[in-house]
Amino acid sequence: MSTGAPSLLDILDLETLDVDLYRGASPDTERQRVFGGQVAGQALVAAGRTVDEERHVHSLHAYFLRPGDPTEPIIYHADRIRDGGSFTTRRVVAAQRGQPIFHLSASFHRVEDGFEHQRPMPDAPPPDSLASVTVDRLEPGTETGYIAGYSAIDLRPVPDTDAWSRREQAWFRITEHLPDQPLAHVCAAAYASDLTLLGTAVRPHDTSSAKVQGASLDHAMWFHRPFRADEWLLYDRESPSASGARGLAIGYLYTAEGRLVATVVQEGLMRPLPAGR
Amino acid sequence: MSTGAPSLLDILDLETLDVDLYRGASPDTERQRVFGGQVAGQALVAAGRTVDEERHVHSLHAYFLRPGDPTEPIIYHADRIRDGGSFTTRRVVAAQRGQPIFHLSASFHRVEDGFEHQRPMPDAPPPDSLASVTVDRLEPGTETGYIAGYSAIDLRPVPDTDAWSRREQAWFRITEHLPDQPLAHVCAAAYASDLTLLGTAVRPHDTSSAKVQGASLDHAMWFHRPFRADEWLLYDRESPSASGARGLAIGYLYTAEGRLVATVVQEGLMRPLPAGR
Repeated sequence: MSTGAPSLLDILDLETLDVDLYRGASPDTERQRVFGGQVAGQALVAAGRTVDEERHVHSLHAYFLRPGDPTEPIIYHADRIRDGGSFTTRRVVAAQRGQPIFHLSASFHRVEDGFEHQRPMPDAPPPDSLASVTVDRLEPGTETGYIAGYSAIDLRPVPDTDAWSRREQAWFRITEHLPDQPLAHVCAAAYASDLTLLGTAVRPHDTSSAKVQGASLDHAMWFHRPFRADEWLLYDRESPSASGARGLAIGYLYTAEGRLVATVVQEGLMRPLPAGR
Repeated sequence: MSTGAPSLLDILDLETLDVDLYRGASPDTERQRVFGGQVAGQALVAAGRTVDEERHVHSLHAYFLRPGDPTEPIIYHADRIRDGGSFTTRRVVAAQRGQPIFHLSASFHRVEDGFEHQRPMPDAPPPDSLASVTVDRLEPGTETGYIAGYSAIDLRPVPDTDAWSRREQAWFRITEHLPDQPLAHVCAAAYASDLTLLGTAVRPHDTSSAKVQGASLDHAMWFHRPFRADEWLLYDRESPSASGARGLAIGYLYTAEGRLVATVVQEGLMRPLPAGR
């Protein structure tokens, strides 16, 4: 019952139910859980609908609370907690059957000038020299194969001979053309950034003899400079820590020209399971 | 009208007004704004009061919304958004005169075992070889001199000959003895971690000819392993980016034995002002 590539723009286009109240659909897939990036992207769309377009989102912080059911719509309620002179802050709760499955806070800022510096872009082979991967290869040894809308993203991991490294790289881009609205590219990047990040925390460990139950616990992003998500972005990732059945990963998104456009941090469940389960 | 060193434990000891409703006081200082670390620490206390002690906080995400008034108490309202089988999530809004000044989300986890790795501890001279600093030296060129309760913390920056580096180190410890409750040490570290972090983002820039209006915008922490905040912690910090009048800084907290115990990320306003202002 495969339905082919869902349109990312369709997924991110919420239905307005009332002031500050929106409804989002999930693509028609056989996944058992809603892909976390979908909920994060839709929640950011809901937040953005309540904010003047001249203020751009510069950060978001989110928690995944319960698995989302892809056969039911998701209700997004935005709370206008702060409208300030320079900054606007929103909180969004995503719910199904009256139960919160996710909540997000996001902050928007009027455009200002200031000091400039950035983490340098690390060396990486160009995306044209690399092969695209399929979803089955994304999270080896984990149970996170519930990714919907994956074909919306062309993902090209950088091969690394050091299988146990705490660092990892991939290029990705959204395969469909996105409109010239900054929020569309940010929401698409939020959608895509949930892919592969936790794999970086699992990578240093030998999971050949045990399965790992993985799930995104939270998600935070900071947007530093404008970018297009339908052009190549280098996702440079490292894992500072794993302990207590959790792992932390930090990702940096660069344009092909070397501009740092976003920083991403995610903690995930990394629960060892017996191989038989 | 100096009142000497306030007790950090007194500051973090909230009054219970009702179920999930708490009131916190600010130390009697001449600061014009409440220190951000105080609100973060008190909000985390409020969240923790609603959670079984056997679940330990492993992450928090917060936004600073409005300056806090140190002459008024702060009301903390906790929302029990999720009580799960392994994880508990709370949201806390801090308000004064009915207006939100800060909100925080935090997640608690039952103790589990799993895979282990960590970012190695970088080289640093031992704290005994370094001098303590006073608050006036904390944020040169910025207007963030509103820190209350500073004497509760012994802060010892590591001198660095490269004044324009995007990296910085300091040791700190809470000077009073803290009880043997993990949450007390985490709240104290949340309190202290708001100090100095944004300075790392300002550091690469020549601010001798211009003032910088600085303010914490958000605060995120992940707690990886148990620790005591009344023993020395190395705060190793770097700034991945500054742009658009904002700066981002990432900090890693290590015990003297080299264990990574927490990761901290904060974005701050870094608005250039004419020197005359």
